[in-house]
Amino acid sequence: MSATLPFPPFGQRHLLGIARLQPHEIEQLIDLAEAEVAVSRRRDKKKSTLKGRTQINLFFEASTRTQASFELAGKRLGADVMNMAVANSSVKKGETLIDTAMTLNAMQPDILIVRHHSAGAVALLAQKVACSVVNAGDGAHEHPTQALLDALTIRRHKGRIARLTVTICGDVLHSRVARSNILLLNALGARVRVVAPATLLPSGIESMGVEVYRRMEDGLKDADVVMMLRLQRERMEGSFVPSVREYFRYFGLDAAKLRHARPDALVMHPGPMNRGVEIASEIADGPQSVIEEQVEMGVAVRMAVMSALIGGPEASA
Amino acid sequence: MSATLPFPPFGQRHLLGIARLQPHEIEQLIDLAEAEVAVSRRRDKKKSTLKGRTQINLFFEASTRTQASFELAGKRLGADVMNMAVANSSVKKGETLIDTAMTLNAMQPDILIVRHHSAGAVALLAQKVACSVVNAGDGAHEHPTQALLDALTIRRHKGRIARLTVTICGDVLHSRVARSNILLLNALGARVRVVAPATLLPSGIESMGVEVYRRMEDGLKDADVVMMLRLQRERMEGSFVPSVREYFRYFGLDAAKLRHARPDALVMHPGPMNRGVEIASEIADGPQSVIEEQVEMGVAVRMAVMSALIGGPEASA
Amino acid sequence: MSATLPFPPFGQRHLLGIARLQPHEIEQLIDLAEAEVAVSRRRDKKKSTLKGRTQINLFFEASTRTQASFELAGKRLGADVMNMAVANSSVKKGETLIDTAMTLNAMQPDILIVRHHSAGAVALLAQKVACSVVNAGDGAHEHPTQALLDALTIRRHKGRIARLTVTICGDVLHSRVARSNILLLNALGARVRVVAPATLLPSGIESMGVEVYRRMEDGLKDADVVMMLRLQRERMEGSFVPSVREYFRYFGLDAAKLRHARPDALVMHPGPMNRGVEIASEIADGPQSVIEEQVEMGVAVRMAVMSALIGGPEASA
Repeated sequence: MSATLPFPPFGQRHLLGIARLQPHEIEQLIDLAEAEVAVSRRRDKKKSTLKGRTQINLFFEASTRTQASFELAGKRLGADVMNMAVANSSVKKGETLIDTAMTLNAMQPDILIVRHHSAGAVALLAQKVACSVVNAGDGAHEHPTQALLDALTIRRHKGRIARLTVTICGDVLHSRVARSNILLLNALGARVRVVAPATLLPSGIESMGVEVYRRMEDGLKDADVVMMLRLQRERMEGSFVPSVREYFRYFGLDAAKLRHARPDALVMHPGPMNRGVEIASEIADGPQSVIEEQVEMGVAVRMAVMSALIGGPEASA
Repeated sequence: MSATLPFPPFGQRHLLGIARLQPHEIEQLIDLAEAEVAVSRRRDKKKSTLKGRTQINLFFEASTRTQASFELAGKRLGADVMNMAVANSSVKKGETLIDTAMTLNAMQPDILIVRHHSAGAVALLAQKVACSVVNAGDGAHEHPTQALLDALTIRRHKGRIARLTVTICGDVLHSRVARSNILLLNALGARVRVVAPATLLPSGIESMGVEVYRRMEDGLKDADVVMMLRLQRERMEGSFVPSVREYFRYFGLDAAKLRHARPDALVMHPGPMNRGVEIASEIADGPQSVIEEQVEMGVAVRMAVMSALIGGPEASA
Repeated sequence: MSATLPFPPFGQRHLLGIARLQPHEIEQLIDLAEAEVAVSRRRDKKKSTLKGRTQINLFFEASTRTQASFELAGKRLGADVMNMAVANSSVKKGETLIDTAMTLNAMQPDILIVRHHSAGAVALLAQKVACSVVNAGDGAHEHPTQALLDALTIRRHKGRIARLTVTICGDVLHSRVARSNILLLNALGARVRVVAPATLLPSGIESMGVEVYRRMEDGLKDADVVMMLRLQRERMEGSFVPSVREYFRYFGLDAAKLRHARPDALVMHPGPMNRGVEIASEIADGPQSVIEEQVEMGVAVRMAVMSALIGGPEASA
């Protein structure tokens, strides 16, 4: 039967980060996702790829849109999906992360989708369970499905990733989205720039293979893609918090700044947007914006990732 | 295949309010709902009308019973149902209602069930999305499925709506239930009365085609149906809040007051009830009460509405 | 068709407590559960036993793990499962327990899974509804599925329950788990001991047919099974709250104390564990621990209970 498979088996058990993937594995996931886009546009969106399988969404940090995307992806693949409201859970009664993982593991899920506020927590958890684990965001570390959906969106418009100039702007310091995107874009041969105020730039970021700019006008020059990041003021307790007005003036994307990029440059944002903070409404809603398409691609990418991890004919035999 | 359909196609894409429906459309929905009543009484309650379709419940105001009714209706029709916990969501991170709508729309749902605390918010949202939208209650404006289920309940007992005298009692000012019921009952030819203290009566209510009474005894005289409303004290901040005891004495439905209605008058309440405030327990649990039947009819009406909007053979082709 | 059934019909409509079951009914449920264990270990975990049936989880007390266990059990049996977030619900608007029950009943569920903070509340609710009810824990009264899963776990290791010595240790006073286990173990012929500080022991416990010990060393002597209970400090407001350190020294299970039990004694805990309070980590994770297996057996037991109550060919005909 494997002779008829459109893709070779995917070699990984978990998706913990872009850093652990080979370029051909990234390409394979994007190809798979491309094939899933049509499914959600159909009247009957239901597949049987994961029929009888159990998916548990374990979100230690609330994230309505990412959780919703994974939930719809799982349901459209035919899985039984269970959301764990961790905020109300045993974790409050003093149970450890590991005990929570062991408990869920004993209920025999096939795949766990995990978001956690600490970098590394998802990888730790993956070591303790028998099922597949997908990192849906861990601290400021990685958010691999976001990078994959961004790459799919770019490729659908530009035909490729290689040799594109992609500028990532804003709160790079607190952004797992930025980290995963830098890793993916570099792996596939893009030229990656970041623009951020000095206080929102992690030290040593240059070693990740990016060009660093301080002024939007310089960083955006001739860019093919502009990725704005959300200003994560909720993570800035006790450190420097920029004023919204100052921030927008220097680092918010408006028409004047966007004019420095290529005329056909894509404008992206992982959402939820702070309109008037990191992006002007006219740009968010303008002709170059692919922000809604990113959300649509999110469902397709999550369907592809879960199919690749546990949907194969021998994956759990 | 359309030759064998029991009903003609329903002409609307959304159900935003009774005010937008023609009398024949109201009748059609009630007829459809009547046919769905038997489904939930079966051992196997599962239909395939909405198989492979995606229903999202988006409740900006918590409402366990209405949400549960829509969730069961969707599941029994075979849809994939997702509840969005909006209270914990991006809305808190500063995302606007419209961005939330656009985000969900990009995930390709077939139908959104929306409750919002502001009148008009659901109609605004419906303009921004590609799918069908059902208003599950918007501010003090409309709650169309409640009016439909009330009409179905009445018709099952009285055989018709036309020419019945229906008295709506209580907190009319804050009640979308009252508004939707007045519109529906008038459209189908009932004679509608309201009884309320002056402070809980919207100004100009007479222009909606109702007779206004101040005393329960007068308003209930020879009524065929008595609809009690919930006293919505949580919406009365800063304005007149009646004492529970005084309210019950003058406007609570007890045996003495009910005696003014016809002996076979139906007693209705949209729930949740404040026993001893707007209704005496002996009446709520008495032989004239159809309060539980209203809840049952709610599931049937929501199945009918969703089938009519997106279940037809060509609805989304 | 009944000629081919592996089990005779189960005689009860509800599962409210172990106290209401005959020993042969307990054995039947454990046998049924044993047969369900394999289902969750399969790649395709989906059965059609409860296809088209509606299960509602109604948890007045949050309990992520028990609710998750019932949710997965129902979904694997093919039921439509709905979780009611009671904390956000009509109960807050002043609705009574009975009104909540009547409302849900009117939505025609086939089975309600109920947890409530008051002993007896679940049995009261069961009298008001037309469907089956499972007690998922009511106050300090009973938690029958926990006792059944403990019995299944023991039987898989020891081959029987009869004549085993089982020692239940810790906060017996607040524990519905202890009560249900004592009832079940006695019904099936085990010898049951309890060890607890005087302040955490209900008066008259001896009349339940248990031997009472004050010192772990004495109570554990030659035990076949050691069941630790969670120290429920959240239920101890206004009464004696032991210091964690003192509690662990005298009543926490560590290697030294466990040495008094039989070398092949099983170590059990209903979770969530307070490591270092009632149990040492090295014991919880050690070779005698079957704590994770208990969680796995929980899903199988809940599948068996729901199948027995509403899955039979004539159960709701």
